Amino acid sequence: MQLGMMGLGRMGANMVRRLMKDGHECVVYDVNPSAVGALASDGASGAQSLQEFIGKLSKPACVWLMLPAAITGKVVEEIAALLEPGDIIIDGGNSHYEDAVDIAARLSEKKISFVDVGTSGGVWGLERGYCLMIGGPDDAVRHLDPILASLAPGADNATSTQASTAERGYLHCGPSGAGHFVKMVHNGIEYGVMAAYAEGLNILRAANAGKEKRTIDAETSPLKHPQYFQFDIDLAAVSEVWRHGSVIDSWLLDLTAEALKKDADLNQFDGRVSDSGEGRWTLKAAIDTGVPAPILSSALFSRFTSQGQSAYADKLLSAMRFAFGGHAEKKPE
Amino acid sequence: MQLGMMGLGRMGANMVRRLMKDGHECVVYDVNPSAVGALASDGASGAQSLQEFIGKLSKPACVWLMLPAAITGKVVEEIAALLEPGDIIIDGGNSHYEDAVDIAARLSEKKISFVDVGTSGGVWGLERGYCLMIGGPDDAVRHLDPILASLAPGADNATSTQASTAERGYLHCGPSGAGHFVKMVHNGIEYGVMAAYAEGLNILRAANAGKEKRTIDAETSPLKHPQYFQFDIDLAAVSEVWRHGSVIDSWLLDLTAEALKKDADLNQFDGRVSDSGEGRWTLKAAIDTGVPAPILSSALFSRFTSQGQSAYADKLLSAMRFAFGGHAEKKPE
Amino acid sequence: MQLGMMGLGRMGANMVRRLMKDGHECVVYDVNPSAVGALASDGASGAQSLQEFIGKLSKPACVWLMLPAAITGKVVEEIAALLEPGDIIIDGGNSHYEDAVDIAARLSEKKISFVDVGTSGGVWGLERGYCLMIGGPDDAVRHLDPILASLAPGADNATSTQASTAERGYLHCGPSGAGHFVKMVHNGIEYGVMAAYAEGLNILRAANAGKEKRTIDAETSPLKHPQYFQFDIDLAAVSEVWRHGSVIDSWLLDLTAEALKKDADLNQFDGRVSDSGEGRWTLKAAIDTGVPAPILSSALFSRFTSQGQSAYADKLLSAMRFAFGGHAEKKPE
Amino acid sequence: MQLGMMGLGRMGANMVRRLMKDGHECVVYDVNPSAVGALASDGASGAQSLQEFIGKLSKPACVWLMLPAAITGKVVEEIAALLEPGDIIIDGGNSHYEDAVDIAARLSEKKISFVDVGTSGGVWGLERGYCLMIGGPDDAVRHLDPILASLAPGADNATSTQASTAERGYLHCGPSGAGHFVKMVHNGIEYGVMAAYAEGLNILRAANAGKEKRTIDAETSPLKHPQYFQFDIDLAAVSEVWRHGSVIDSWLLDLTAEALKKDADLNQFDGRVSDSGEGRWTLKAAIDTGVPAPILSSALFSRFTSQGQSAYADKLLSAMRFAFGGHAEKKPE
Repeated sequence: MQLGMMGLGRMGANMVRRLMKDGHECVVYDVNPSAVGALASDGASGAQSLQEFIGKLSKPACVWLMLPAAITGKVVEEIAALLEPGDIIIDGGNSHYEDAVDIAARLSEKKISFVDVGTSGGVWGLERGYCLMIGGPDDAVRHLDPILASLAPGADNATSTQASTAERGYLHCGPSGAGHFVKMVHNGIEYGVMAAYAEGLNILRAANAGKEKRTIDAETSPLKHPQYFQFDIDLAAVSEVWRHGSVIDSWLLDLTAEALKKDADLNQFDGRVSDSGEGRWTLKAAIDTGVPAPILSSALFSRFTSQGQSAYADKLLSAMRFAFGGHAEKKPE
Repeated sequence: MQLGMMGLGRMGANMVRRLMKDGHECVVYDVNPSAVGALASDGASGAQSLQEFIGKLSKPACVWLMLPAAITGKVVEEIAALLEPGDIIIDGGNSHYEDAVDIAARLSEKKISFVDVGTSGGVWGLERGYCLMIGGPDDAVRHLDPILASLAPGADNATSTQASTAERGYLHCGPSGAGHFVKMVHNGIEYGVMAAYAEGLNILRAANAGKEKRTIDAETSPLKHPQYFQFDIDLAAVSEVWRHGSVIDSWLLDLTAEALKKDADLNQFDGRVSDSGEGRWTLKAAIDTGVPAPILSSALFSRFTSQGQSAYADKLLSAMRFAFGGHAEKKPE
Repeated sequence: MQLGMMGLGRMGANMVRRLMKDGHECVVYDVNPSAVGALASDGASGAQSLQEFIGKLSKPACVWLMLPAAITGKVVEEIAALLEPGDIIIDGGNSHYEDAVDIAARLSEKKISFVDVGTSGGVWGLERGYCLMIGGPDDAVRHLDPILASLAPGADNATSTQASTAERGYLHCGPSGAGHFVKMVHNGIEYGVMAAYAEGLNILRAANAGKEKRTIDAETSPLKHPQYFQFDIDLAAVSEVWRHGSVIDSWLLDLTAEALKKDADLNQFDGRVSDSGEGRWTLKAAIDTGVPAPILSSALFSRFTSQGQSAYADKLLSAMRFAFGGHAEKKPE
Repeated sequence: MQLGMMGLGRMGANMVRRLMKDGHECVVYDVNPSAVGALASDGASGAQSLQEFIGKLSKPACVWLMLPAAITGKVVEEIAALLEPGDIIIDGGNSHYEDAVDIAARLSEKKISFVDVGTSGGVWGLERGYCLMIGGPDDAVRHLDPILASLAPGADNATSTQASTAERGYLHCGPSGAGHFVKMVHNGIEYGVMAAYAEGLNILRAANAGKEKRTIDAETSPLKHPQYFQFDIDLAAVSEVWRHGSVIDSWLLDLTAEALKKDADLNQFDGRVSDSGEGRWTLKAAIDTGVPAPILSSALFSRFTSQGQSAYADKLLSAMRFAFGGHAEKKPE
C-alpha cells in the first residue's frame, strides 16, 4: 500500500527502504532536499514541499512522521490543515505520549485519525525489522496493518508457533497514547539495562586497582587489601563470553562486545551521554503514579551528570567539607 | 575425561548430565544419598563418603564443587587433606572471589591447583550450555579444557567465525580469583538488568492509575492529569513484542515474557527476593576501588527492602513526620 | 493588620493564633464549623460561609489559604469571584508552583494579586515561628509585611547582626511561583535528609547481626565475619550525643532523639510513609531542567515502596529467578 | 590529667589546645617537628621521637592518636611495643571499626587497653567542642572521663536538664569498635545529608532554565514548559531563610549559608569531592547486614563520580548508543 513519510533521518529513511523492499509505494518529504533526493533515486516518490507531499497521497492519506519530539506537534498541525476526514497521521518518533493523547482528541474532531507508533530498532531496523508499539483507534490501526507488518521483524524472528502480531514484532497496545507510553517505558528500561552493563564493566576494569600506588593522607580512603585487586580483565573477551549461555545475554550485550572488540578503551568517545526525553517521561509517569523507579532514575541521573549537570552540587559539597573540616580539594593524580 | 563432582543440587546434577552426554566419566558425591542415587542410575559413579569419592578418582584427581558459598571453604580444606600434589580442585559455586585468592595461595603450597569457575546458565544450562568464567593457573585450566568445552554452549551458539573459547562460551579470565570476580560482576549486572525490567513493567502496570478515585487530603499527592493514565496495558503481550526487534531484547526478557504468559498477575509469588552474595560482593569491590555503581546498588537494596529490611527506617520516617508536622500514618486503602 | 484565613487545620489554626498573639485581627473560615468555633472562642472573627467570610474583610481584602493542594485551585476561583481589584489571595499550602504561575497570570487580569507562600515549621510553628518562602508581585508582598514578619521566627532567632528579612525567617524569593518553588525544593531536601538519618540508624540497629544464627543455603548470603557485628547500640543515646558538637546536628535530629527516647522500637508506627506532592514536584523540576537528583529520588522512591508500590516489581524479580534458576522464594524467618 | 597526643594535624592540634584550656597536661608528638614546636610554644610538652614521647608519659600512659587511617594500624604496633600493661591507646581518627575490634583483641593479650573514639566536630571543635563516640573496655573509658568531658561540648550545649554524658556530647557506645562503628555511620549520614542540600540547591539554581535557548534535535530533550522555569533564585538568601524556623535547619545549613554569602558561585572550588573511608565502610556494613541504604550509597557514588570514576562507564553508554542508533555524542554547548 501507499505511505507518505516525512522526516528522512536515519530512522525515517531506513523505514522507507524496508517498506519499498516489501513492495510498498512510498511518498517522501524532508526539509532537507538531499535526503529526499537520496530516497527518490532508490525508487521513492519525492516531494519538494509539504503541499506537494500531501497532494501526492491517495485517499485515505496515510502520513508517517519521524521527527524530533520538539517539533512534531507543530508539524502535525500543519499537516492536519491539509488533510480530510478519514485520513491518518502516524507519529513514529520519540514524542511524549501525553501529546498523543491531546493531539488525537483534537484531530478526532476533524475525523482525522492519529496513530502513535513507538518504534525501536535503531540503525539495525532496516535489516532486522522494527519493534512497533502502537496506540490509536482500531480501524486506523487495522488499515495500517500491511505497513506495520512489513516494518516489523515478522514471523521468522518469532520462536512461538502461535502467531499473534506481538510475536511478529508489532502490537496494538491501546487507545491513542498507549503506543508512545509503552515505547517510553521501553526506553526507560533501556537506560537501566545499558547502565547496568556499563557499571559492571567499569568495575571489572578497576579489578587491577591493587597494582596502583595510593596516596596516604586523611583525604584518601585506603585500599585495605590490594592483593584482591590484581586482575587485568580483557573486557572484550568477557563481554563476548557472556553472550554464550549466560543469564545476561542480550542484544545490547552483542553490540557492546562488538564495540569493545574494536577498541576496548573506547577512545572514540568522550562519555557525554545524551538523553532524548523518553527516560525523563518514564520517570515522570512513575512519579505521577507513585511507582518506585530507583534503577531507572539512577540511570537517567547518571546521564545528566555525564552532561556536566552535577558541577554545582559537587562544588557545594567541597564548600561544606572546607567549612566544617578545613578540607582542601584534592587535585587529580 | 574423568571428573569428580560434589554438590548435586540443581546446578551440579545438571552439569554432570551434560558432561556424561558428551562422553565424560563422572564420579559424584553429595551429603544427600538420594541425589547420588539419582545420578548413579543415569550412569554416574556414586560415592557414599568423601573418602570413597576421592578414592575413585584417577590421577590427577579433578574435583569440582557446586556448594553454597557458606560451606565451600570448609569442604575445600577437607578435600585438600585427601589429595596429592598435582590434583585439581574446581569451585564452580557462587563463592567470594577473595576466598579463591586465599585458598589458591594456601593450596599452591601443597602443589594442589585451585581453579575458580564462575558458572552461569541456571536450570537451562543442561540443554543450553553453561557460560564459564575461569580463574587459576594456566596448566590446570588447560588440563580441564575438555570438561570446560563440554559444559559450555559450544561453537554452534557463536555468531563469529573466529572460534576463541570466549565465542564457545568459556574464558580463562586470569589468575586464581579472576573467574569468580568476573562471575560476581556478571551477577551484579544481572541484578541491575532484572530490576530495570521489573521497574519498567511496574510502571506500565500503573498506566491505568487515572481510573482510580483518589483521596483528597494533605497526606495524598494529587494526580493532576488523570486523563493521561487511562491505559490497561497487556504486560504479557508487551514483553512478547519487545522480544522482536527492540533494543531491549534479551534472554531475561524471553523468560519474563514466558512467565507473564502463564500468569500476568504472578500470584504464585510473594515478592520476597533473595540474593546469594554476588551482588553484595560486586558492590564491595566497587566501593573498594572507588567506582560508582548507583544502578547495581539500587538493585541490591531493592532486594533487601523486599526482604523487610527497611521496616525500621520507614518507622523512623513516620516518627519524624509525626514529630514535626503531627502527621498520622495513613492506612492502606 | 487584618487577615482572612481559610483552612483551619493544624497549620492554619496555629498561624491564626500566632498572628493574634502579635496583635493582628483575624477573620477565619473552614468548611468544618467546629474548627471555626475553636478559633472564635480564642478571639478570631468566625464566618459560617465563604460569602460571610469575604464580606467581613476590610479593603484591600487579604485572604490566606491553608488547604490541601488538590482543592486549592478550585477554592481560589470561588474566592476570586467574590473579590475586587486590589485584593490579595495568599496560598500558604503545599501547592504545585506551576499552579501559582498560572493562577497569578489569570488573577492579574482582574487586578487581584496572588502571593504564594511556602510555609515550613509544622506543629512547632506556633511557638517557634514559620519559615516563609514568598513569591509574587512586589507591592502585594510589601503590603503583607506586618503579617509575614509576625508569622516568621523574627530577629531573636537570627545569629547575624545584619537583619535582612531572610535572617528574620521570611524571604521574597521572586515573582509568582518562586515561593512555592523554593518551598518545594525545601521539602525535597527534607525527604533526603530524613532518609539519610533513617538509613544510618537502621544500619546501627543491625550492628548486632553477628549474634543471629544464619541459614546455610544457596539463597542466603553468608555473613563472613560475624565478629564485627556484635554491638547492641542504644539508638536513643546515640541520636542524643550527635546533637552535641557533631557535624550532623540538626532540628530533625532533635526530633528524632526525642522520639527515640520515648520508644526506641517505634512500635506506634507501621512504617507507611506518606508524601504530600512536593517531593514529586521537586524531582519533576530536576528532570525538566536536566539536574541529577539521585538522593532526592531515592528518598521519594523509598516512600513509594513503603506504601506497597514495589510489590509487583518484586514479584517479577522472583518470577525471573524462578525461571532461570529454579529458585523458590524463601519465607520470612 | 595528662594525655599524650600523636598526630598534630588540624584535628589533633586543636584537641590539644582545647584540653590545655581546661587545665590538662599534654605531651605531643608528630613526624613533622614544626607541628610539635607550634604546640610546645602554646604550653604543651613536645617530643622529638616516639621514644621520647612515650618516655614523657606518667603511668598509666594514655596515648591518643589522630592519624590517617592508612597508617594508624602500623603506628599502634610501634607504640604498643613501648607500653606496659595497664597503659591505654586511644584511636580518635577515622579508622575502620573492624581494625579496632582486631587491635583491641591483640592488645588485650598484653593487658594494654585500646579505646576507639569517633570524633566529630572538624575545625570548629576547638571552640564548639567535639562529639565523641567511644568504644572499649569500661575501666579504660572511665579512666579517660576527665579528658573526654573536656573535649566534648559539655552541659551548656545540652537542652535537657538530665545530664547523661550523651547530653554533654560524649557516649560510651559499647565494646571495642563500637565507637568507630557509630562514628562511621555518623559520617555515612553526613554524606547523605550534605548531598541532599547540594542536590536541592542545584535544582534551585536551574530554576531559570526556561530563559535559555534550547537546541532542537533528536538528541536533546525538549523543555516543554519554559514558562515555569523563569526564576533567578538567590541561593545565599534562601539558605539563610531556611535557617530560621524551617524543618531542614541544621549546622551543615549554617555553614552552607555562610559559604554562599561569601561567593554563591563557589568559584574557589572545582567540585572534586574526596571521601575518607567512613562512607565506604558504612555501606559495606549495610551490605553485610542486608540493610538497604540507597541514599547513603547514592551520596558516596556521587563523590566517586566527581572524582572522575564514571568516565569509562559513560563512554560505554555512548558506544552502545552509537552502535544501536548511530547516535554521535553531542559536544558541550
